[in-house]
Amino acid sequence: MYKLSSWENFQQHYLDLPELEMAVDTSQMKAPDLLPKSLEKLFRHAFQQMQELEEGSIANPDENRMVGHYWLRNPELAPTAEIQKVISSTLEKIQKFADEIHQNKLHPQKADSFRNVLLLGIGGSALGPQFLQNALASEADQMRFYFLDNTDPDGIDQVMAAIGNGLTETLTLVISKSGGTKETRNAMLEVRHFYENSELDFSKHAVAITGENSQLDQLAEKGNWLCRFPMWDWVGGRTSVLSAVGMLPAALQGLDINNILAGAKIMDQLTRRTEARKNPAAVLAWMWHHAGAGRGEKAMVMLPYKDKLLLFSRYLQQLIMESLGKEKDLAGKTVHQGMTVYGNKGSTDQHAFVQQLREGPADFFVTFIEVQTDRKIPGIEVEPGIKSGDFLQGFLLGTREALFQSGRASLTITLEEINPQSLGALIALFERAVGLYAALIGINAYHQPGVEAGKRAAEDVIELSLKIQSHLKSNPAQKFSASSLAEILEETAKTSTVFKLLEHLAANGRVQKFEASSPFSARFQAN
Amino acid sequence: MYKLSSWENFQQHYLDLPELEMAVDTSQMKAPDLLPKSLEKLFRHAFQQMQELEEGSIANPDENRMVGHYWLRNPELAPTAEIQKVISSTLEKIQKFADEIHQNKLHPQKADSFRNVLLLGIGGSALGPQFLQNALASEADQMRFYFLDNTDPDGIDQVMAAIGNGLTETLTLVISKSGGTKETRNAMLEVRHFYENSELDFSKHAVAITGENSQLDQLAEKGNWLCRFPMWDWVGGRTSVLSAVGMLPAALQGLDINNILAGAKIMDQLTRRTEARKNPAAVLAWMWHHAGAGRGEKAMVMLPYKDKLLLFSRYLQQLIMESLGKEKDLAGKTVHQGMTVYGNKGSTDQHAFVQQLREGPADFFVTFIEVQTDRKIPGIEVEPGIKSGDFLQGFLLGTREALFQSGRASLTITLEEINPQSLGALIALFERAVGLYAALIGINAYHQPGVEAGKRAAEDVIELSLKIQSHLKSNPAQKFSASSLAEILEETAKTSTVFKLLEHLAANGRVQKFEASSPFSARFQAN
Repeated sequence: MYKLSSWENFQQHYLDLPELEMAVDTSQMKAPDLLPKSLEKLFRHAFQQMQELEEGSIANPDENRMVGHYWLRNPELAPTAEIQKVISSTLEKIQKFADEIHQNKLHPQKADSFRNVLLLGIGGSALGPQFLQNALASEADQMRFYFLDNTDPDGIDQVMAAIGNGLTETLTLVISKSGGTKETRNAMLEVRHFYENSELDFSKHAVAITGENSQLDQLAEKGNWLCRFPMWDWVGGRTSVLSAVGMLPAALQGLDINNILAGAKIMDQLTRRTEARKNPAAVLAWMWHHAGAGRGEKAMVMLPYKDKLLLFSRYLQQLIMESLGKEKDLAGKTVHQGMTVYGNKGSTDQHAFVQQLREGPADFFVTFIEVQTDRKIPGIEVEPGIKSGDFLQGFLLGTREALFQSGRASLTITLEEINPQSLGALIALFERAVGLYAALIGINAYHQPGVEAGKRAAEDVIELSLKIQSHLKSNPAQKFSASSLAEILEETAKTSTVFKLLEHLAANGRVQKFEASSPFSARFQAN
Repeated sequence: MYKLSSWENFQQHYLDLPELEMAVDTSQMKAPDLLPKSLEKLFRHAFQQMQELEEGSIANPDENRMVGHYWLRNPELAPTAEIQKVISSTLEKIQKFADEIHQNKLHPQKADSFRNVLLLGIGGSALGPQFLQNALASEADQMRFYFLDNTDPDGIDQVMAAIGNGLTETLTLVISKSGGTKETRNAMLEVRHFYENSELDFSKHAVAITGENSQLDQLAEKGNWLCRFPMWDWVGGRTSVLSAVGMLPAALQGLDINNILAGAKIMDQLTRRTEARKNPAAVLAWMWHHAGAGRGEKAMVMLPYKDKLLLFSRYLQQLIMESLGKEKDLAGKTVHQGMTVYGNKGSTDQHAFVQQLREGPADFFVTFIEVQTDRKIPGIEVEPGIKSGDFLQGFLLGTREALFQSGRASLTITLEEINPQSLGALIALFERAVGLYAALIGINAYHQPGVEAGKRAAEDVIELSLKIQSHLKSNPAQKFSASSLAEILEETAKTSTVFKLLEHLAANGRVQKFEASSPFSARFQAN
């Protein structure tokens, strides 16, 4: 049983950041007071590497790309005048476009004003915008938001039904860095069809955010869409939220994007400190290293005690797991690095999985997020002298104490309040922590080579579906079992995939199915 | 590198459940073809234990409770006529109440009809209803749903703002088994205040679902609320979704609750099979045991490829982690059991953390959920012969193949479609799998002793806040630092908690703060 963290220990491990009204408390991480010698050298190297990256070195060697998300909130840092200019001019263009939408200077084809935003994107083109939109939603919002972040037809129909006749007043943002992401392409085609069914010209309601000259960019240009905003090869998808990807939706929502960027810029300054203990991102990277022995042995459980931060863990799942989850280190050695992130919000999750956190395997550490300001109105007392927010704080402090007492480590990030600046700072904090931690463990945080294999395998599946459909259509009088069809198509290694594809086509009325005694001997025929 | 699963292997590990139009495919789990001898005996014991539980044995010995969630969908199983009767009569009462609401026989104080449902609950009193509501939402829904599942004042304000003037037409369900859950009590008091501010009598819009004679039950009775529905001590919170907790909201939504219950009842029949390989819940329990060596060494990543199932992983986090996350086994030995669950939905998560799944630590297995029916309308082709749903299936099959090739195991549950029956079956499947797996590893799945410590610690925090406020009020002319106040209150072991409480009170304008050179020497004074 551990003693409760003492006041001295607390003060020693409490990093106050008055510039941002934030603090990082690592007093319950059971870490040493001073940075271990073994990490000192690694941190010197990490700071050096980070400086080179900010100066425009090729930080992503596989893809021969610079990594410039830090420039987005401080264009002066960018290595060329051209990049500086395009960052600033894009921000101006975003604000101007949002103003024109809000002032109805730009209006829909058959209505006076755009009232809804429908955002199509996936991964880095959705998680950041969703997180910001949700966290900063208020009655002052200028527009109502909808998201499509998948290629699920049923999910698309559900969102389109929720928009309903509001489609006439809906601005659709199509976001894809590569411009070729299939899920987003599919969502765009589906949504365009809904506009056409409502006798609306999609192009008069559509905006593209994509790399220059991508498929999507060309489509938007030829189709004369309302507007196009750039994504740049020096911004990775998972660190793109402060580019047009997140800033255009935020501006349309009516948020002050300059404050979001200012928060990130201040945090960047604080996280350039080369004394690790005074640098909040270095402190996080150190704690991750300490908790998981530099091998990601502990999952990070994210518990923000604030409903508005519910999506933060999903945002961080991508930022952290896609950046750190790597087979090889920079020297080419097989390391299988990573750090699992999960969690929703407190105190809700206390009634879900905190039982396991307290009693189960000690395979995690918790990151609590505490927000000091409870609400905008005074609010009622729920007991004499006590308000709902006192319980929220009480559950946070009580849970971290109970965890500490059973030997489970946690750290706590405190924000004065949720606002554009503090969210910008939070985003920048974790971006830098990921970069520094990746440098400590010697991996490339800026590529995602493992994602390709699944995409290629999916393409093979689609191709196989086409071969199946084509063969059935060419032999309309015949019935085929999965295994006979696989043999004919010379795909016997993929018979189970043929089976699943046939089942799926049949379930959707695209082929006929004839049941048999066993599911494997069912036969299928063209309609 | 593993060979792709062969057609023979696939057939051997594919458990078809035609009664429910479902299948469980474990061909990519790399498990042996036959149940290992070591598990045979354990399964015989587990089936025996499950039978006793269904017959009304005291399955939760700490709390001296029966565990009867299986009776909810088959009252004839219940061990006493009284329990049989109360299950059936409650279901009738639920349907009658919902009908009266829909037919406006029961109407709000100042409006013709109830159009909204506001559900207050947390943990087991929220996750199940949220999951069902979200998964089965359609344009046919009779009412619009809102949820409050926390004691976050800001979150409450946000939901109440979304309801706005609709409060006049809002039915509020207050759900708490114990009737004393603080988060739900607080939400209820806050919501009641909103009704009162709108000059509405809360009791004319309120329904309680709670244990007989609980605080909440008494409040609802004395206050003459619209209706009260029972929770029983033989139903645990995390398995309560098929009691009034989930069935009243479902009936209000307009769902056919009999179909939900029927799906669960059929699944219960299939999961009573004592041949483990033919019993889908036993197959899951076996696979969990196989993957994690009976010690929960692998996390379960839930990836339903269907937007409607987004909340399933949160529902399962509670069901699984609260049931299995235990320090002691039934013999009192320290075991620190558990199984981590996380995930959102595919293919969205492929663009988030599948990079780590493929390349990072092999510390997980995936549970894919495949839904064969894509949508209710025919839908467009996104490429010749290919629809959006083909991509959804393609990404699922492609990702599991890519994972398998890098040695990562997965299992796939296939549903013909998302409907009340298949969801009831899915719920019952995992309930039984948890019960069987707990029996295999010898733990009590039906209590949550680790949750209490956090609650008690939270109560101490609240008490300390009151002491602080009281001392400041009694000495209104004086300023105190956190450490001086802790000394005066004889709470020096909790100085850091005093500090955090003062910061929180100050941030909300409830005490004055006087900054100093260090955050620790700031002083505080009564307003």
